[in-house]
Amino acid sequence: MSKTRLEAFSDGVIAILITILVLELKVPPGSDWQALRSMLPTFLIYVLSFVFLGIYWNNHHHMCQAAERVNGKILWANLHLLFWLSLVPFVTAWMGQTKLSPLPTAIYGVVLICAALAYTILQTAFMSAHGPNSRLRAAVGNDYKGKFSLACYAAAIPLSFIVQWAAVGLYIFVVLIWIVPDPRIESRLP
Amino acid sequence: MSKTRLEAFSDGVIAILITILVLELKVPPGSDWQALRSMLPTFLIYVLSFVFLGIYWNNHHHMCQAAERVNGKILWANLHLLFWLSLVPFVTAWMGQTKLSPLPTAIYGVVLICAALAYTILQTAFMSAHGPNSRLRAAVGNDYKGKFSLACYAAAIPLSFIVQWAAVGLYIFVVLIWIVPDPRIESRLP
Amino acid sequence: MSKTRLEAFSDGVIAILITILVLELKVPPGSDWQALRSMLPTFLIYVLSFVFLGIYWNNHHHMCQAAERVNGKILWANLHLLFWLSLVPFVTAWMGQTKLSPLPTAIYGVVLICAALAYTILQTAFMSAHGPNSRLRAAVGNDYKGKFSLACYAAAIPLSFIVQWAAVGLYIFVVLIWIVPDPRIESRLP
Amino acid sequence: MSKTRLEAFSDGVIAILITILVLELKVPPGSDWQALRSMLPTFLIYVLSFVFLGIYWNNHHHMCQAAERVNGKILWANLHLLFWLSLVPFVTAWMGQTKLSPLPTAIYGVVLICAALAYTILQTAFMSAHGPNSRLRAAVGNDYKGKFSLACYAAAIPLSFIVQWAAVGLYIFVVLIWIVPDPRIESRLP
Repeated sequence: MSKTRLEAFSDGVIAILITILVLELKVPPGSDWQALRSMLPTFLIYVLSFVFLGIYWNNHHHMCQAAERVNGKILWANLHLLFWLSLVPFVTAWMGQTKLSPLPTAIYGVVLICAALAYTILQTAFMSAHGPNSRLRAAVGNDYKGKFSLACYAAAIPLSFIVQWAAVGLYIFVVLIWIVPDPRIESRLP
Repeated sequence: MSKTRLEAFSDGVIAILITILVLELKVPPGSDWQALRSMLPTFLIYVLSFVFLGIYWNNHHHMCQAAERVNGKILWANLHLLFWLSLVPFVTAWMGQTKLSPLPTAIYGVVLICAALAYTILQTAFMSAHGPNSRLRAAVGNDYKGKFSLACYAAAIPLSFIVQWAAVGLYIFVVLIWIVPDPRIESRLP
Repeated sequence: MSKTRLEAFSDGVIAILITILVLELKVPPGSDWQALRSMLPTFLIYVLSFVFLGIYWNNHHHMCQAAERVNGKILWANLHLLFWLSLVPFVTAWMGQTKLSPLPTAIYGVVLICAALAYTILQTAFMSAHGPNSRLRAAVGNDYKGKFSLACYAAAIPLSFIVQWAAVGLYIFVVLIWIVPDPRIESRLP
Repeated sequence: MSKTRLEAFSDGVIAILITILVLELKVPPGSDWQALRSMLPTFLIYVLSFVFLGIYWNNHHHMCQAAERVNGKILWANLHLLFWLSLVPFVTAWMGQTKLSPLPTAIYGVVLICAALAYTILQTAFMSAHGPNSRLRAAVGNDYKGKFSLACYAAAIPLSFIVQWAAVGLYIFVVLIWIVPDPRIESRLP
């Protein structure tokens, strides 16, 4: 089974997700500065989710490039990742429309942590399909960044119920540490 | 006529369908646990339809890979399959928003059975375009799983009007038996 | 300039259009047979537009296959065609939600005739980019079917204000004469 | 890193954006000429945004064709451009639904100017990844058209608060000067 179609399908789904996010940016009821100001929290979460999906596309892309083969398990692990990513527009809209209320902010974190776990599962499926000395395995290494992100999400979820802005801050922090394409893999590519 | 563009178009349509499903997950009017709990049936159907479309993508992918050529009849049979799949977001939304009412649950089954029949027609069109000793024909075999799924759908439709949860259970059951990529074809691929 | 990316972009846009049509199928307010029956005209137009877009994809595909090169003029003629096709979900929704009222039925015809003219312009742009003895030019021939369709649309638009069902009948008639992939081009392909 | 997947992802996102624009064309509440006439400003902005996105696709396409390699910086500059383009359906809907009110018209200009700046940044990132004598660098030249467009947008934003139709006129003017594919690059391609 070729990895081309897996890449094309994943690219397609992520491209659609990143684009339909905008459909959840509801037109404000009015055309004055007040209407624009009321969109600020929604817009902030929109930017966050956009970058978040961009990072997944980027890292997914790097991982696929280092991979050499694909099997049935990888295909389902990939669909599992896409499932959690597919919920991003929904939680983004919920969080935005409720002006960053505690529960939606926590659920946003739950979707993020599930997507991160799904990515880890996909990464493991890719690695077990390649030998112990493969380029991919060497490139992923200890995956400190991945584990650290999971810890941040795990902290942000309960924090949402106490100081939701701190939770949002943690989400932004995770986005910032990932914004650079993964040097672990890139540096090992020809 | 090349099969590449057929694959690309089908992949595109299925990727969009699986993604716009999320647009039917309406943001609940509230931000408390009650609002979240009220989304449970909708969410369940969302997961079901997501996996269902994922299975079609997967099997379509395997069938195209085993195929060697494409003709006008295959093209229309493929569009016919995509038509029934295109109704999935609609019936998912209807079933979710009416909390799994009898009629929408039955119509969900009607769309599933029509999609399954369309897939069978497409499979037949593919097979008749290939010789009797083709890899594809050998790979499909007796298609017990396909026939069994049709029987399950046929049972679920009337069942929807009596105990709709049993119908939903049958849909979940069919999804479970298909979740593994079709070994009939995969095992015969190089 | 390669024709691959033109094909990919057009396929992408048509695949998205054919898919987002379903987003205009609004969930009916109710879950009984009455609710389902009230969807019939909407559903009929949905099917019509789906097949209509499928035919464009199909013929566009055949034309691109016969083509050998692409230039700036073709690119804009193609975007012009996509523009008219992009209005299909809107007119479909309007016609469906107003239960086939005269004006929306006429506007549906206007969009169809503009799309057909845009296709003719694109076809001409393709032909002038190829020599007088090209495979494409020979394949298109007199384009009787295209001219006949234009005449049907031109008749259907005023007819919408008198007997709108006759106009809908004409649209269905045009769809039926196009449902077979264009043999003029296909028969000349290797 | 290959430029193929960057092109495919960008094409995908722009194709989806240009298509979901139509979802913001809300069906008018009525089926008479009055309902149709009330859609005129919305429709005008729809056409403008459609052509605007078409131009970006076109120029992006030409730039990618002249490019020979891609790096991490280009990837993020590209995502940055897609971010601003992704806001086009939102500002189009806002401007259309408020019948070209001053503030939405100005914000439309802000999104246009940010997209133009993002394109310039992407162009610079592409050029710095290629040598001083590269085909791309020679092709872009002084980019008078790009700088002139930026000046037009900068003038249109304050103008929106005084005579919004003049601002809309400036947007149309910029679209007109770009509608021809960039001869600077095209003429230098083989």
